[in-house]
Amino acid sequence: MNQIISVLVENKSGVLAKISGLFSRRGFNIESLTVGPTDDEKISKITIVVNTDEKTVEQITKQLHKLINVLKIQKLDPGCSIRRELVLVKVNTENKSRAEILEIANIFRANVVDVCKSSLTLELTGAETKINAFKELLKPYGILEFVRTGMIACARGKNIKK
Amino acid sequence: MNQIISVLVENKSGVLAKISGLFSRRGFNIESLTVGPTDDEKISKITIVVNTDEKTVEQITKQLHKLINVLKIQKLDPGCSIRRELVLVKVNTENKSRAEILEIANIFRANVVDVCKSSLTLELTGAETKINAFKELLKPYGILEFVRTGMIACARGKNIKK
Repeated sequence: MNQIISVLVENKSGVLAKISGLFSRRGFNIESLTVGPTDDEKISKITIVVNTDEKTVEQITKQLHKLINVLKIQKLDPGCSIRRELVLVKVNTENKSRAEILEIANIFRANVVDVCKSSLTLELTGAETKINAFKELLKPYGILEFVRTGMIACARGKNIKK
Repeated sequence: MNQIISVLVENKSGVLAKISGLFSRRGFNIESLTVGPTDDEKISKITIVVNTDEKTVEQITKQLHKLINVLKIQKLDPGCSIRRELVLVKVNTENKSRAEILEIANIFRANVVDVCKSSLTLELTGAETKINAFKELLKPYGILEFVRTGMIACARGKNIKK
Protein backbone atom coordinates (compact mmCIF):
# COMPACT_ATOMS: atom_id res chain seq x y z
CA MET A 1 0.00 0.00 0.00
CA ASN A 2 1.19 3.52 -0.72
CA GLN A 3 2.35 5.30 2.42
CA ILE A 4 3.00 9.03 2.60
CA ILE A 5 5.80 10.42 4.73
CA SER A 6 6.22 14.15 5.15
CA VAL A 7 9.63 15.37 6.33
CA LEU A 8 10.62 18.90 7.35
CA VAL A 9 14.34 19.48 6.76
CA GLU A 10 16.85 22.31 6.82
CA ASN A 11 17.25 23.75 3.31
CA LYS A 12 20.93 22.81 2.92
CA SER A 13 22.95 21.15 0.20
CA GLY A 14 23.28 17.40 0.71
CA VAL A 15 20.17 16.79 2.80
CA LEU A 16 18.23 15.21 -0.06
CA ALA A 17 21.23 13.01 -0.93
CA LYS A 18 21.32 11.72 2.66
CA ILE A 19 17.61 10.93 2.70
CA SER A 20 17.47 9.28 -0.72
CA GLY A 21 20.64 7.37 0.17
CA LEU A 22 18.94 5.98 3.26
CA PHE A 23 16.06 4.66 1.12
CA SER A 24 18.33 3.18 -1.53
CA ARG A 25 20.64 1.41 0.95
CA ARG A 26 17.63 -0.40 2.33
CA GLY A 27 16.37 -1.22 -1.15
CA PHE A 28 13.10 0.73 -0.95
CA ASN A 29 11.98 2.17 -4.23
CA ILE A 30 10.45 5.63 -3.88
CA GLU A 31 7.18 5.88 -5.85
CA SER A 32 7.30 9.65 -5.92
CA LEU A 33 9.16 12.42 -4.13
CA THR A 34 8.80 16.18 -4.05
CA VAL A 35 11.02 18.77 -2.37
CA GLY A 36 10.22 22.44 -2.14
CA PRO A 37 10.72 25.34 0.26
CA THR A 38 8.00 26.06 2.86
CA ASP A 39 6.84 29.57 3.83
CA ASP A 40 10.12 29.82 5.78
CA GLU A 41 12.84 29.62 3.12
CA LYS A 42 15.37 28.05 5.48
CA ILE A 43 13.12 25.01 5.78
CA SER A 44 12.09 22.62 3.02
CA LYS A 45 9.40 20.00 3.03
CA ILE A 46 9.97 16.61 1.43
CA THR A 47 6.92 14.47 0.65
CA ILE A 48 7.79 10.84 -0.06
CA VAL A 49 5.44 8.11 -1.28
CA VAL A 50 6.65 4.53 -0.74
CA ASN A 51 4.83 1.34 -1.57
CA THR A 52 5.38 -0.71 1.57
CA ASP A 53 3.75 -1.88 4.82
CA GLU A 54 3.27 0.08 8.04
CA LYS A 55 6.05 -1.73 9.89
CA THR A 56 8.64 -0.74 7.29
CA VAL A 57 7.46 2.87 7.39
CA GLU A 58 8.08 2.87 11.15
CA GLN A 59 11.61 1.60 10.54
CA ILE A 60 12.22 4.27 7.91
CA THR A 61 10.90 6.95 10.27
CA LYS A 62 13.28 5.84 13.03
CA GLN A 63 16.23 5.99 10.64
CA LEU A 64 15.20 9.42 9.35
CA HIS A 65 15.04 10.77 12.93
CA LYS A 66 18.76 10.04 13.28
CA LEU A 67 19.75 12.44 10.48
CA ILE A 68 20.78 15.82 11.91
CA ASN A 69 19.15 18.05 9.30
CA VAL A 70 15.75 16.43 9.77
CA LEU A 71 13.46 18.64 11.87
CA LYS A 72 10.16 16.78 11.88
CA ILE A 73 8.63 13.65 10.36
CA GLN A 74 4.96 12.82 9.97
CA LYS A 75 3.21 9.83 8.51
CA LEU A 76 0.01 10.99 6.85
CA ASP A 77 -3.09 8.90 7.34
CA PRO A 78 -4.86 8.52 3.94
CA GLY A 79 -8.26 8.76 5.66
CA CYS A 80 -7.79 12.24 7.09
CA SER A 81 -5.48 14.01 4.72
CA ILE A 82 -5.80 15.88 1.45
CA ARG A 83 -3.63 14.44 -1.32
CA ARG A 84 -2.97 16.28 -4.52
CA GLU A 85 -0.76 15.87 -7.53
CA LEU A 86 -0.24 17.96 -10.67
CA VAL A 87 0.32 16.64 -14.18
CA LEU A 88 1.07 18.20 -17.53
CA VAL A 89 -0.02 15.99 -20.43
CA LYS A 90 0.77 16.71 -24.07
CA VAL A 91 -1.63 14.82 -26.34
CA ASN A 92 -1.48 14.26 -30.06
CA THR A 93 -4.46 15.88 -31.80
CA GLU A 94 -5.99 15.91 -35.23
CA ASN A 95 -8.84 18.15 -36.32
CA LYS A 96 -11.35 15.42 -35.55
CA SER A 97 -10.02 14.38 -32.16
CA ARG A 98 -9.50 17.85 -30.66
CA ALA A 99 -13.15 18.27 -29.66
CA GLU A 100 -13.22 14.83 -28.06
CA ILE A 101 -10.09 15.57 -26.01
CA LEU A 102 -11.49 18.93 -24.90
CA GLU A 103 -14.64 17.16 -23.76
CA ILE A 104 -12.62 14.76 -21.60
CA ALA A 105 -10.64 17.73 -20.25
CA ASN A 106 -13.90 19.48 -19.30
CA ILE A 107 -15.23 16.48 -17.42
CA PHE A 108 -12.00 16.23 -15.41
CA ARG A 109 -11.84 20.02 -15.01
CA ALA A 110 -8.41 20.07 -16.64
CA ASN A 111 -7.06 23.33 -18.09
CA VAL A 112 -5.63 23.77 -21.55
CA VAL A 113 -2.23 25.44 -21.13
CA ASP A 114 -0.87 25.20 -24.67
CA VAL A 115 -2.16 24.36 -28.09
CA CYS A 116 -0.58 23.94 -31.51
CA LYS A 117 -1.71 22.46 -34.82
CA SER A 118 -1.10 18.87 -33.84
CA SER A 119 -0.99 18.83 -30.03
CA LEU A 120 -2.75 20.03 -26.89
CA THR A 121 -1.13 20.43 -23.47
CA LEU A 122 -3.43 19.94 -20.49
CA GLU A 123 -2.91 20.65 -16.80
CA LEU A 124 -4.75 18.57 -14.20
CA THR A 125 -4.65 18.41 -10.41
CA GLY A 126 -6.16 15.70 -8.27
CA ALA A 127 -5.56 12.54 -6.32
CA GLU A 128 -3.63 9.66 -7.85
CA THR A 129 -6.67 7.68 -9.03
CA LYS A 130 -8.15 10.66 -10.90
CA ILE A 131 -4.87 11.27 -12.68
CA ASN A 132 -4.53 7.61 -13.64
CA ALA A 133 -8.08 7.56 -15.04
CA PHE A 134 -7.33 10.70 -17.08
CA LYS A 135 -4.16 9.11 -18.46
CA GLU A 136 -6.01 5.94 -19.52
CA LEU A 137 -8.66 7.96 -21.37
CA LEU A 138 -6.08 9.99 -23.26
CA LYS A 139 -3.83 7.05 -24.18
CA PRO A 140 -5.70 6.10 -27.39
CA TYR A 141 -5.03 9.59 -28.86
CA GLY A 142 -1.28 9.27 -28.27
CA ILE A 143 0.41 10.80 -25.22
CA LEU A 144 3.48 12.75 -26.38
CA GLU A 145 4.61 13.82 -22.95
CA PHE A 146 3.48 13.10 -19.40
CA VAL A 147 5.07 14.91 -16.45
CA ARG A 148 3.72 14.49 -12.92
CA THR A 149 4.90 16.26 -9.78
CA GLY A 150 4.45 13.44 -7.33
CA MET A 151 2.05 13.72 -4.44
CA ILE A 152 1.87 16.40 -1.78
CA ALA A 153 -0.38 16.02 1.23
CA CYS A 154 -1.77 18.02 4.07
CA ALA A 155 -3.72 16.95 7.17
CA ARG A 156 -7.43 17.86 7.22
CA GLY A 157 -8.82 20.44 9.64
CA LYS A 158 -6.60 22.18 12.14
CA ASN A 159 -4.10 19.29 12.53
CA ILE A 160 -0.86 20.96 11.65
CA LYS A 161 2.20 19.12 10.47
CA LYS A 162 4.58 22.00 11.02
CA MET B 1 19.13 32.30 -12.27
CA ASN B 2 16.87 29.30 -11.87
CA GLN B 3 17.64 26.60 -14.41
CA ILE B 4 15.37 23.64 -15.10
CA ILE B 5 16.81 20.24 -15.94
CA SER B 6 14.51 17.42 -16.91
CA VAL B 7 15.95 13.89 -16.63
CA LEU B 8 14.38 10.64 -17.83
CA VAL B 9 15.60 7.70 -15.73
CA GLU B 10 14.87 4.02 -15.25
CA ASN B 11 12.41 3.56 -12.36
CA LYS B 12 14.80 1.61 -10.11
CA SER B 13 15.78 1.84 -6.47
CA GLY B 14 18.91 3.97 -5.93
CA VAL B 15 18.73 6.15 -9.05
CA LEU B 16 17.53 9.20 -7.14
CA ALA B 17 20.25 8.68 -4.52
CA LYS B 18 22.91 8.66 -7.27
CA ILE B 19 21.58 11.85 -8.85
CA SER B 20 21.11 13.79 -5.62
CA GLY B 21 24.54 12.55 -4.48
CA LEU B 22 26.09 14.02 -7.63
CA PHE B 23 24.58 17.43 -6.83
CA SER B 24 25.59 17.35 -3.17
CA ARG B 25 29.21 16.29 -3.84
CA ARG B 26 29.59 19.36 -6.02
CA GLY B 27 27.92 21.56 -3.42
CA PHE B 28 24.92 22.59 -5.55
CA ASN B 29 21.79 23.17 -3.55
CA ILE B 30 18.67 21.94 -5.33
CA GLU B 31 15.89 24.56 -5.20
CA SER B 32 13.20 22.03 -5.92
CA LEU B 33 12.98 18.48 -7.22
CA THR B 34 10.13 16.24 -8.27
CA VAL B 35 10.17 12.58 -9.28
CA GLY B 36 7.22 10.71 -10.64
CA PRO B 37 6.51 7.91 -13.11
CA THR B 38 5.79 8.81 -16.75
CA ASP B 39 3.10 7.13 -18.89
CA ASP B 40 5.50 4.18 -19.11
CA GLU B 41 5.82 2.93 -15.52
CA LYS B 42 9.35 1.62 -16.03
CA ILE B 43 10.52 5.16 -16.66
CA SER B 44 10.44 8.09 -14.25
CA LYS B 45 10.96 11.75 -14.92
CA ILE B 46 12.96 13.90 -12.54
CA THR B 47 12.58 17.68 -12.81
CA ILE B 48 15.30 19.60 -11.00
CA VAL B 49 15.50 23.35 -10.44
CA VAL B 50 18.95 24.71 -9.55
CA ASN B 51 19.94 28.29 -8.99
CA THR B 52 23.15 28.54 -10.98
CA ASP B 53 24.66 29.78 -14.26
CA GLU B 54 24.49 28.13 -17.69
CA LYS B 55 28.09 26.90 -17.57
CA THR B 56 27.50 24.97 -14.38
CA VAL B 57 24.35 23.43 -15.81
CA GLU B 58 26.39 22.15 -18.74
CA GLN B 59 28.85 20.57 -16.30
CA ILE B 60 26.01 18.96 -14.36
CA THR B 61 24.49 17.63 -17.58
CA LYS B 62 27.80 16.03 -18.60
CA GLN B 63 28.10 14.34 -15.21
CA LEU B 64 24.50 13.12 -15.35
CA HIS B 65 25.09 11.55 -18.78
CA LYS B 66 27.70 9.27 -17.21
CA LEU B 67 25.18 7.61 -14.87
CA ILE B 68 23.94 4.34 -16.36
CA ASN B 69 20.28 4.61 -15.36
CA VAL B 70 19.91 8.01 -16.99
CA LEU B 71 18.11 7.76 -20.33
CA LYS B 72 17.75 11.36 -21.47
CA ILE B 73 18.54 14.85 -20.18
CA GLN B 74 17.06 18.11 -21.36
CA LYS B 75 17.65 21.67 -20.25
CA LEU B 76 14.39 23.58 -20.57
CA ASP B 77 14.53 27.08 -21.96
CA PRO B 78 12.31 29.35 -19.79
CA GLY B 79 11.19 31.27 -22.87
CA CYS B 80 9.58 28.35 -24.66
CA SER B 81 8.40 26.02 -21.94
CA ILE B 82 5.36 25.75 -19.71
CA ARG B 83 6.25 25.74 -16.01
CA ARG B 84 3.79 24.76 -13.36
CA GLU B 85 3.82 24.11 -9.66
CA LEU B 86 1.14 23.06 -7.20
CA VAL B 87 0.75 24.28 -3.62
CA LEU B 88 -1.55 23.46 -0.73
CA VAL B 89 -1.86 26.34 1.74
CA LYS B 90 -3.66 26.09 5.07
CA VAL B 91 -4.57 29.57 6.31
CA ASN B 92 -5.81 30.64 9.70
CA THR B 93 -9.33 32.12 9.47
CA GLU B 94 -11.74 33.94 11.70
CA ASN B 95 -15.34 34.75 10.81
CA LYS B 96 -14.29 38.19 9.57
CA SER B 97 -11.28 37.18 7.52
CA ARG B 98 -12.82 34.19 5.71
CA ALA B 99 -14.54 36.34 3.08
CA GLU B 100 -11.34 38.29 2.42
CA ILE B 101 -9.33 35.10 1.96
CA LEU B 102 -11.94 33.65 -0.39
CA GLU B 103 -11.77 36.84 -2.44
CA ILE B 104 -8.00 36.48 -2.83
CA ALA B 105 -8.49 32.81 -3.72
CA ASN B 106 -11.01 33.80 -6.43
CA ILE B 107 -8.67 36.33 -8.00
CA PHE B 108 -5.88 33.73 -8.18
CA ARG B 109 -8.34 31.01 -9.28
CA ALA B 110 -7.36 28.87 -6.30
CA ASN B 111 -9.69 26.07 -5.16
CA VAL B 112 -10.88 25.52 -1.61
CA VAL B 113 -10.14 21.89 -0.78
CA ASP B 114 -10.90 21.84 2.95
CA VAL B 115 -12.55 24.08 5.48
CA CYS B 116 -13.00 23.97 9.24
CA LYS B 117 -14.06 26.49 11.88
CA SER B 118 -10.70 28.18 12.11
CA SER B 119 -8.85 27.30 8.90
CA LEU B 120 -9.17 27.09 5.12
CA THR B 121 -7.04 24.90 2.84
CA LEU B 122 -6.49 26.21 -0.68
CA GLU B 123 -5.02 24.57 -3.75
CA LEU B 124 -3.27 26.67 -6.38
CA THR B 125 -1.34 25.88 -9.56
CA GLY B 126 0.81 28.28 -11.50
CA ALA B 127 4.31 29.50 -12.19
CA GLU B 128 6.68 30.34 -9.35
CA THR B 129 6.00 34.09 -9.29
CA LYS B 130 2.22 33.60 -9.05
CA ILE B 131 2.65 31.24 -6.13
CA ASN B 132 5.02 33.60 -4.33
CA ALA B 133 2.59 36.51 -4.76
CA PHE B 134 -0.25 34.36 -3.37
CA LYS B 135 1.89 33.42 -0.36
CA GLU B 136 2.75 37.06 0.40
CA LEU B 137 -0.93 38.06 0.31
CA LEU B 138 -1.95 35.29 2.68
CA LYS B 139 0.90 35.77 5.16
CA PRO B 140 -0.86 38.46 7.28
CA TYR B 141 -3.71 36.02 8.07
CA GLY B 142 -1.29 33.39 9.36
CA ILE B 143 -0.11 30.50 7.20
CA LEU B 144 -0.45 27.26 9.18
CA GLU B 145 0.92 24.99 6.52
CA PHE B 146 2.51 25.48 3.11
CA VAL B 147 3.38 22.51 0.91
CA ARG B 148 4.62 22.98 -2.64
CA THR B 149 5.41 20.27 -5.17
CA GLY B 150 8.35 21.92 -6.88
CA MET B 151 8.25 22.81 -10.53
CA ILE B 152 7.44 20.60 -13.49
CA ALA B 153 7.95 21.81 -17.03
CA CYS B 154 7.09 20.87 -20.56
CA ALA B 155 8.31 22.29 -23.88
CA ARG B 156 5.76 24.35 -25.84
CA GLY B 157 4.30 23.14 -29.13
CA LYS B 158 5.33 19.85 -30.63
CA ASN B 159 8.89 19.85 -29.18
CA ILE B 160 8.95 16.62 -27.28
CA LYS B 161 11.30 15.85 -24.45
CA LYS B 162 10.71 12.13 -24.46
